[in-house]
Formats: sequence, C-alpha cells, structure tokens
Amino acid sequence: MPVHGTPARLAQQLQFVLEIDRLKSILRESPLADGSRRENTAEHSWHLALAAAVLAEHADEPVDVSRVVLMLLVHDLVEIDAGDTFVYDAMTDEGRAAQEAREQAAAERIFGMLPPDQASWLRGIWDDFESKATPESRYAKSVDRLQPMLLNRASGGGSWQAHGITADRPHALIEAQMRGGSEALTRFAHALVDAAVAEGRLAPPAS
Amino acid sequence: MPVHGTPARLAQQLQFVLEIDRLKSILRESPLADGSRRENTAEHSWHLALAAAVLAEHADEPVDVSRVVLMLLVHDLVEIDAGDTFVYDAMTDEGRAAQEAREQAAAERIFGMLPPDQASWLRGIWDDFESKATPESRYAKSVDRLQPMLLNRASGGGSWQAHGITADRPHALIEAQMRGGSEALTRFAHALVDAAVAEGRLAPPAS
Repeated sequence: MPVHGTPARLAQQLQFVLEIDRLKSILRESPLADGSRRENTAEHSWHLALAAAVLAEHADEPVDVSRVVLMLLVHDLVEIDAGDTFVYDAMTDEGRAAQEAREQAAAERIFGMLPPDQASWLRGIWDDFESKATPESRYAKSVDRLQPMLLNRASGGGSWQAHGITADRPHALIEAQMRGGSEALTRFAHALVDAAVAEGRLAPPAS
Repeated sequence: MPVHGTPARLAQQLQFVLEIDRLKSILRESPLADGSRRENTAEHSWHLALAAAVLAEHADEPVDVSRVVLMLLVHDLVEIDAGDTFVYDAMTDEGRAAQEAREQAAAERIFGMLPPDQASWLRGIWDDFESKATPESRYAKSVDRLQPMLLNRASGGGSWQAHGITADRPHALIEAQMRGGSEALTRFAHALVDAAVAEGRLAPPAS
C-alpha cells in the first residue's frame, strides 16, 4: 500500500515498519506476570530491551548498552516467519537444523526489506546475538533467559506448570545460556528457581 | 516477592522490571495493522523504538539515536498508573491539568522504584520527551504520532473510524506534533492521510 510520491528509500523503510507489526501476533509460552494471558514476542522484546538497560551494570564485561538494546529489539524478528520455539522443546538434531534454516531464511527476507545498508546493519546485530561471540550478545542472552523465569514465578508457575517442567531443566538452562553473560543474574536466576520450588510453583528436580 | 539473598540494588531493579510488565495490559485506541485487536502500550513502545532507529536519518536535526530509543521505551510507562489518553479526546483545560498531574505522580512512583541514580536518569529522559525541548524529543514525538496513522490506514480505518474522526484532525495533529521533528515524516503523514481519505478509510475534512 504505497503512498504516492514517497521517496523510494523512505517507502522501503516504512514497509519494514509495517511488516514487523506482525511480531505482536506471535505468542510465546510465557504468561504475563499477572497470569492473565500469554506474552507476545513484540512486548517481550520491549521488556527485555528496557530490562537490559536497567541491569547493564551486572554484565560480566563492559557492554555497549545501546547495541544490546537494539539487539534485543530485533532478536526475535525472525519469529514472524519461523514462529516461536519453546526453550524446553526436545528437538532432534534434524529438527534443530530445520528450525535454524527457517530462521536464517526469515532473517534474509525480513531484514532484506530494508535498504541494503540498513539490512546488513541490523542483520549483523542479529547474527551477533545468535553467535554469543561478544560481551553484548552474551549479556543480552542472559536477560532473554532471565525474563521468562521472572514471569513464570510471578504468575504462579506459567509455562513450567503448563509443560510439566522440573527444576533441573531451568537450572541447566541457566548454566548453558546465562553463565558467561552475567554472574550476578546467573546467581539470582538459580536462587529464583529454588524459591519457585519452595513456593510450589515449580516441580522439584527430577532425580 | 523478594528472592532471599539478592543484593538490595539488584532486588530494586528487578522489582522495577516486574512492575513495568503491567504496561502490556494497557490498551490503546489504535489496532494492529491486521485489525485483529487493539494494540497495547508495551508492544507500541517496542514498535516505536525500532521504527525510530530505522527512520533516524529523517530527523530534522542530528539526534542521539540511542537516547531516542530509550526515550521511546520509557515514554508511556506512566500509563501503568495514569492510563492511555486518546489523542483526539477533547479535554477541558481542567481535564488536561488533572491528566498531567496523574502522569507526574505516576512518573514519581514508577521511576522512583529504581535506585536513585537510575530513577533520575530515566525520569530525566521521560521529562525530555514530554518537553519537546531537544532534537531527540521532537523526533521521538514525530515517530509516536506517525505510527498510529500507519496502523489505522493499514487496518482499514482503525481508531479514525471507531471515533468518527475527520481528516482535518490528523492533518492538524501532524502540524502540531510532527512538524519540527521530521520534515520528511511530516510530509509523508499528510500524504498518508490524503491517501486514507481517497481509499475511504478516513472521512474527508469537516468543512
């Protein structure tokens, strides 16, 4: 739906802005803190970006906060095409490779709607997030893992309860995906999981 | 719901992170682009922040993009307490003063949940947005005004139709709130309004 007379570059940018609106319709497994409904990926991205700005002093290494914020704003855009993957889904190697291929194709299409210079700029930031190769991406990933745990506990169990998750699984996830980004948040997350078990909101570790 | 053993400063920051989750339950008048439901303020804030990053070259004056992004992430937090105000609501001077008092009190409470240094940092950014005194705030305001027009048109009329808005009102709003932030976006917005009238999605100007 172009508007007549819009310069081509601006029109392209605005098409991208309209396209990403679809992220608001991608539902995640985590509930809102009040348990009223499931969270969507757009509001999740907002929550992470602002949380990351406020918690930045807890990153293990100095981070460029503005890059972290931008990274979290775009980190899940590929879900518009590829959908959300529940973090505890037991996937085969084949399933995982197929999901990764879908996400790469989605990144190609969605960032590719932008003028080439901006497409490679945002694609680069997204690739960085996926790689966990920089302090920014490791810290951003920590915040991305912590937030659903906050929501699950606050809402009384959330996706832990809905999917019969036992406490060993978030503990393992914290070690795999938060350690290396923020020691302080890693320690807090383990304590939160223990608290959730003590409160009866999360099943004890499977033995 | 504190987690035992969390350092006081981190606990305070995490309480803020949980509190702002409530912004996801504040509904705006604008619909999603596909018209499926009304937009909430958290996902709106995400949309603006990313749109502003992509459109930054169109700001009238050079802007600190990372400040604009942060500004848009926090600009509507006060709605948690003060609610959303429809931009075309005809308010008396008294009503407007009361709404402003509610928003000031909300800013005091919500930013005040953070440690003092962070409270004054984010409160300062919010005050800046409200003031329209800097290139960042004028540009951020432009994007905040443009986005609902994109959604209204895309969805077939949205809050324009729902509230019987005629085209003179968005045209006036564009002049009052976009002019001075971005000439390119101001021009585009006027053209979008004209296009929406031509398409039958917005009533012609009241004479």
